[in-house]
Amino acid sequence: MPRADFVCVSRLRVRWAEVDMQKIVFNGHYLTYIDTAVAEYWRAIGLPYPQGYVERYGADLFLRKASVDYLGSARYDEALAVYARVGRLGRSSMTFHFEIHREADAAPLVTAELVYVNADCSTMKAAALPEEVRSRVLGYERIAPALGAAQA
Amino acid sequence: MPRADFVCVSRLRVRWAEVDMQKIVFNGHYLTYIDTAVAEYWRAIGLPYPQGYVERYGADLFLRKASVDYLGSARYDEALAVYARVGRLGRSSMTFHFEIHREADAAPLVTAELVYVNADCSTMKAAALPEEVRSRVLGYERIAPALGAAQA
Amino acid sequence: MPRADFVCVSRLRVRWAEVDMQKIVFNGHYLTYIDTAVAEYWRAIGLPYPQGYVERYGADLFLRKASVDYLGSARYDEALAVYARVGRLGRSSMTFHFEIHREADAAPLVTAELVYVNADCSTMKAAALPEEVRSRVLGYERIAPALGAAQA
Amino acid sequence: MPRADFVCVSRLRVRWAEVDMQKIVFNGHYLTYIDTAVAEYWRAIGLPYPQGYVERYGADLFLRKASVDYLGSARYDEALAVYARVGRLGRSSMTFHFEIHREADAAPLVTAELVYVNADCSTMKAAALPEEVRSRVLGYERIAPALGAAQA
Repeated sequence: MPRADFVCVSRLRVRWAEVDMQKIVFNGHYLTYIDTAVAEYWRAIGLPYPQGYVERYGADLFLRKASVDYLGSARYDEALAVYARVGRLGRSSMTFHFEIHREADAAPLVTAELVYVNADCSTMKAAALPEEVRSRVLGYERIAPALGAAQA
Repeated sequence: MPRADFVCVSRLRVRWAEVDMQKIVFNGHYLTYIDTAVAEYWRAIGLPYPQGYVERYGADLFLRKASVDYLGSARYDEALAVYARVGRLGRSSMTFHFEIHREADAAPLVTAELVYVNADCSTMKAAALPEEVRSRVLGYERIAPALGAAQA
Repeated sequence: MPRADFVCVSRLRVRWAEVDMQKIVFNGHYLTYIDTAVAEYWRAIGLPYPQGYVERYGADLFLRKASVDYLGSARYDEALAVYARVGRLGRSSMTFHFEIHREADAAPLVTAELVYVNADCSTMKAAALPEEVRSRVLGYERIAPALGAAQA
Repeated sequence: MPRADFVCVSRLRVRWAEVDMQKIVFNGHYLTYIDTAVAEYWRAIGLPYPQGYVERYGADLFLRKASVDYLGSARYDEALAVYARVGRLGRSSMTFHFEIHREADAAPLVTAELVYVNADCSTMKAAALPEEVRSRVLGYERIAPALGAAQA
């Protein structure tokens, strides 16, 4: 997907402690990088997590599924950009798409898809996404997210 | 999959630093837990990584894809068991399956699938899995891994 | 200090993700290792943190100071033992001493001292250590902790 | 120490995965933050680690001692600045001083002192700091570092 199709981006520099003996970033840390882009996303649409979500809606988001494709490897001290967009809005779930790039590179090092489910804090059961979340995401994204649940 | 179908298991206790403000283990840390089971697997088949692999074969394994299903949440100080098996042996790739359980629970908290690709250290290109790896895996597993590349 | 003077010990194996490009454990991770020994300590004296402390006393412990001496380096997959003891009980503070050893080695890889301060959860000000904590520590340790505040 | 006395500063935002159930940054992560400032320091004096040090001098730096004072607590999503300076140049050792601030606050959340020792890569024994390191540090700092070994 062209980078221009992503409105949200979070930038970071690879830390020494994140690089292993293979001289590449340890695979789990990309989920931490991705999480900084998720935080940026909520801030960008005016619902900074957690106070702009948990307290506002009495609901919380739980990660249900993560799929990560490792196409290349980030190395120590490299400047990375994590691009994020919401690709799908289900009834109670939302699917984020991510691309992690070296600033200068056209091809991503990592692509990923994360599915979050909205749950009511009192019942801890899946609940419909707040309408406001839905409308803010639709107003923010350049490419309209698909609607309806993801096909398996 | 019944736990009895897994020969390899790695045990750990959730650390304070691994739990976030949702009072559950941060999603990326499960890949660290899974990595301890991968290490245990190589030790169990007599090829402890890295010396029993990188130095022995002049090759290395790179993670190509990770899919993680978060079905429940581990909490601080819980004793977890990470079950691992090789579910598929391709020409140059191998696919691991994992289940992370609370010791007492029948249902897993997390299931995951990781695809590793064997690469020649000098060319850094994908190369056939060493025959010895193949035979040791087949000799170790209770349930025979599928053979051939995974279907997309 | 002879290992026999430590009653509390926590064991672990160095994870791949904890080792950096110098092929040694990254310096900050030793504080994570030490934290597992602190958790073990509270469990051992019958006050498992946090429920056996925060909920029981309406107080919490905050780290005020950490001093770590790096005498050697732990490497990937090594089995380590983290020994812990309370070396001093002040009015509101307690000082832990730690030694991290390779199982087979007489000399420690790391020694450390951590000072925690007890604070009242409502005022968030330093408050006297609960008498029960004091008596359980004194009943548990082989070498009696010093009493009174640490000299600067 | 006034912030103006520090020439080197590294900025970061607290990540979700770095905050624990006390709703504050886990104590060990401050050493990771400090490490980003050390990286920035070597970059700033024109000797980016590791290639500008290990390869250039056939020597490496090992952390010998870390002392951290926790005066306050950083929270999720806060913007922090890590100030670094070299406070002492010994024969083979150098001592860094750090202050971690919330951008808006006058008082630091954390102060720390780290002592690194230069070691020859072939013998792994302490060796005199390269003259070039010494002169670049002296040319960079606003406040001249003390010379000679630290007193215990």
